[in-house]
Amino acid sequence: MILYKEENEIIKEALKGLKLPDRVYIFDTTLRDGEQTPGVSLTVDEKVEIAINLDKLGVDIIEAGFPISSSGEYEAVKKIASLNLDAEICALARAVKEDIDRAIDCGVDRIHTFIATSPLHRKYKLKMSKEEIVEKAVNAIEYIKEHGIKVEFSAEDATRTEIDYLKEVYKKAVEAGADIINVPDTVGVMIPRATYYLISELRKEIDNISVHCHNDFGLAVANSLAAVEAGAIQCHVTVNGLGERGGNAALEEVVTSLHFIYGIKTKVKTEELYNISKLVEKLTEVKVQPNKAVVGDNAFAHESGIHAHGVLAHALTYEPIPPELVGQRRRIILGKHTGTHAIEAKLKELGYTNINKEQFKEIVKRIKSLGDKGKRVTDKDVEAIVEDVIGRVSKRERVVDLEQIAVMTGNKVIPTASVALKINDNLIKTSAIGVGPVDAAVKAIQKAIGEKIKIKEYHIDAITGGTDALAEVVVTLEGYGKEITTKAAREDIVRASVEAVIDGINKILKK
Amino acid sequence: MILYKEENEIIKEALKGLKLPDRVYIFDTTLRDGEQTPGVSLTVDEKVEIAINLDKLGVDIIEAGFPISSSGEYEAVKKIASLNLDAEICALARAVKEDIDRAIDCGVDRIHTFIATSPLHRKYKLKMSKEEIVEKAVNAIEYIKEHGIKVEFSAEDATRTEIDYLKEVYKKAVEAGADIINVPDTVGVMIPRATYYLISELRKEIDNISVHCHNDFGLAVANSLAAVEAGAIQCHVTVNGLGERGGNAALEEVVTSLHFIYGIKTKVKTEELYNISKLVEKLTEVKVQPNKAVVGDNAFAHESGIHAHGVLAHALTYEPIPPELVGQRRRIILGKHTGTHAIEAKLKELGYTNINKEQFKEIVKRIKSLGDKGKRVTDKDVEAIVEDVIGRVSKRERVVDLEQIAVMTGNKVIPTASVALKINDNLIKTSAIGVGPVDAAVKAIQKAIGEKIKIKEYHIDAITGGTDALAEVVVTLEGYGKEITTKAAREDIVRASVEAVIDGINKILKK
Repeated sequence: MILYKEENEIIKEALKGLKLPDRVYIFDTTLRDGEQTPGVSLTVDEKVEIAINLDKLGVDIIEAGFPISSSGEYEAVKKIASLNLDAEICALARAVKEDIDRAIDCGVDRIHTFIATSPLHRKYKLKMSKEEIVEKAVNAIEYIKEHGIKVEFSAEDATRTEIDYLKEVYKKAVEAGADIINVPDTVGVMIPRATYYLISELRKEIDNISVHCHNDFGLAVANSLAAVEAGAIQCHVTVNGLGERGGNAALEEVVTSLHFIYGIKTKVKTEELYNISKLVEKLTEVKVQPNKAVVGDNAFAHESGIHAHGVLAHALTYEPIPPELVGQRRRIILGKHTGTHAIEAKLKELGYTNINKEQFKEIVKRIKSLGDKGKRVTDKDVEAIVEDVIGRVSKRERVVDLEQIAVMTGNKVIPTASVALKINDNLIKTSAIGVGPVDAAVKAIQKAIGEKIKIKEYHIDAITGGTDALAEVVVTLEGYGKEITTKAAREDIVRASVEAVIDGINKILKK
Repeated sequence: MILYKEENEIIKEALKGLKLPDRVYIFDTTLRDGEQTPGVSLTVDEKVEIAINLDKLGVDIIEAGFPISSSGEYEAVKKIASLNLDAEICALARAVKEDIDRAIDCGVDRIHTFIATSPLHRKYKLKMSKEEIVEKAVNAIEYIKEHGIKVEFSAEDATRTEIDYLKEVYKKAVEAGADIINVPDTVGVMIPRATYYLISELRKEIDNISVHCHNDFGLAVANSLAAVEAGAIQCHVTVNGLGERGGNAALEEVVTSLHFIYGIKTKVKTEELYNISKLVEKLTEVKVQPNKAVVGDNAFAHESGIHAHGVLAHALTYEPIPPELVGQRRRIILGKHTGTHAIEAKLKELGYTNINKEQFKEIVKRIKSLGDKGKRVTDKDVEAIVEDVIGRVSKRERVVDLEQIAVMTGNKVIPTASVALKINDNLIKTSAIGVGPVDAAVKAIQKAIGEKIKIKEYHIDAITGGTDALAEVVVTLEGYGKEITTKAAREDIVRASVEAVIDGINKILKK
């Protein structure tokens, strides 16, 4: 188990003297602030699915939505509140009766009510005086408390508010009954040193403090952690760092840092972080960039010679923590930067054991030269190179060969395909219709080979360029207890799909 | 001009007493550490193009590559060093003669040499003692200096090294002639407080300190800034935060924070940050996620009612800095969270001025209901809704209609398409061949409509699922001085492509 606070002298020294909390509460706002990501819109069912999984993950509070903003939003919050999850369910409401009533109607455990306090917001948005704002906040908090519901109060744009006024607002909020006060860095202008200062100042007067950090300068996670260093007991986070503009503090980064650097507990099961990331990516359709900390596809991938060599010798040389701790896996990737150690490991992985020194040198040269041309080197490329170099005729091992295929489609034509396959020297001819030409072609092949091999997944990588650009198809097939993934790239998407499928069938049937 | 150090009381207080440098040197390693991003591989020409643009952007040092790692890499560094750019050109070399000779051959201004110092790396990777490592470092530095080249020295995995030993290594490096020492947080385990502590300790003995931060916990930018707070004069960065695993400190985030929060100058022209991000995204094919600080497509986008309303009243209510400062633009996006203010602004933008109150209410309702169904509301959707509500029949405006299309392909069939288009009531029939069925279909349409409209870009979004999943096609057409982008989604990729193209032609020809 990695724990940098104990194992790293520099971190230990730096944290000396700080009174860190034993545990921090994770307030997940993926379904509220995360869903406000421009372009993202989740259905009620999708929100419910995410809520159930957040609950399994172990977040303490789920902010399920902003009920007043639309009827779908209202429905979703109500539904989630009725699920009887372990997590506390919270709804957002401006400090106005209409919003609060709508939130109460949803049957939530906690209402997160807010009003802006910064000079900019007072003047241009609210057109209200400092006193009016305090009064509205207090009224809202008292009104919610009268209904026996927990109150979390935010002074919106707190970090651009005069500090004395901010303290006054928060003190009045606590007096009015707020159970926890939240400090939103609404436009993400804080730096960790300033967050630490601000929370320390507020802590002199208030016990239960939460932070809500935005990522406009890339500092949301660091600011959240600085707040905890100063005594905050709760962090607002979103899966994948979704949220308005540059997003919010990423749940996976905040939690991983707390657990493995600070040794501070949360209720989150870190080994589920990768799964929830993938679920939210799928439902929101916001792709996580590969170079994203913790959950990006490259977060535990190694290509360069030095790194791959190091990782193969001892994983922690180039990994901060074992990938399994966050539900990830290690990937060794080949390319122009690859050294011989990684290629050796890859060849072993692909099952090539009888390669002599000279052949190996030639293989390394060819892989690097492919990389130098700006190409990513896939497993298939490696296989092709190896088979070419060691002179194995893979043709001999093929059980199925495509003799002929013809496909047609159109607006007044049912997509239709005919294929002639040579299977163990018998010529099998079949035809099929489908929803499109690819579907028809693949169905025709499926007919010819029977039910024992099935297509589990079909994926086309995004194609950009002309209509004559290369389309890369990835197919996963299942059969005879094996699961095989194959790729093919061609300008004709139908032929690429067929090639990948037949290649996969051969791999499954190969002795 | 925004300058948080002057305008924000909290930040001003927090930075009080620190001796911040007036200016920080930006050492860009996009072409070295950035290119080591697993899966990324740039050709020599692409590296040159990026180097030229980094130079225009104003970075101080360009680390062009690691010459020993491949012949393409060697060629690229040599070429960039010969361009006579304003930026200093640097090459990476392990602390071994072979690497250094190769770097010297490239004709660079600076050599960045390194050797690992942490216990893990000493034991499992180098299998060397502390003394041997110091000796190798000193020899390498002296050897480079003999050739009259600037030396930057890194103790790899510095942040997991015993601090006394680390100090010793660096002091010996300086004595041997290193011009600047760099502190790499190789696996990204630092937190800002620890970075501040470490750099402060090193500063007691050494003047010129640089930092190189990795992003495994999402803290690379915050750590870079903490190092500057402690007196570091140089930061290693990459465009879009590319790099091994979770990436390196993002150039755009470090520079923007320094300029606009700390008021510390760099030579970087911040208004070019968006452009360089897009260039690097295109050439590396690593997509920047929309919720990426500074350069993400959402970094200055607003959807929710409250935010859009605020921004329309006064942009800085929900923006930390004006987007133009980093070469970005503001985007108002419609969806389920949208309020009436944003919809009003959008309708004006699309040219609808004669909408009465009742119609407006209906339009708002329909836009929100589309959002509630989990749909993103595009400008096209808004147009369709508005035209439906205000009773305009768009069918009437169509100049081109598809009467018939038939496409065939196969391994022994040249992909062929025939189309019958109704253009201004004349029936035009054409056929064409292509590299695949989509290409053939689009070429046939192109023939029918003539050369005045051209397809500028064609894009298929990644498709995952069965072969019968929906394929979304996005096409950009150019003609008659207009540029139009259209989308279509169907299970048949050929028909989706044709639909999007014809839709685009109609938009261009519409009066």
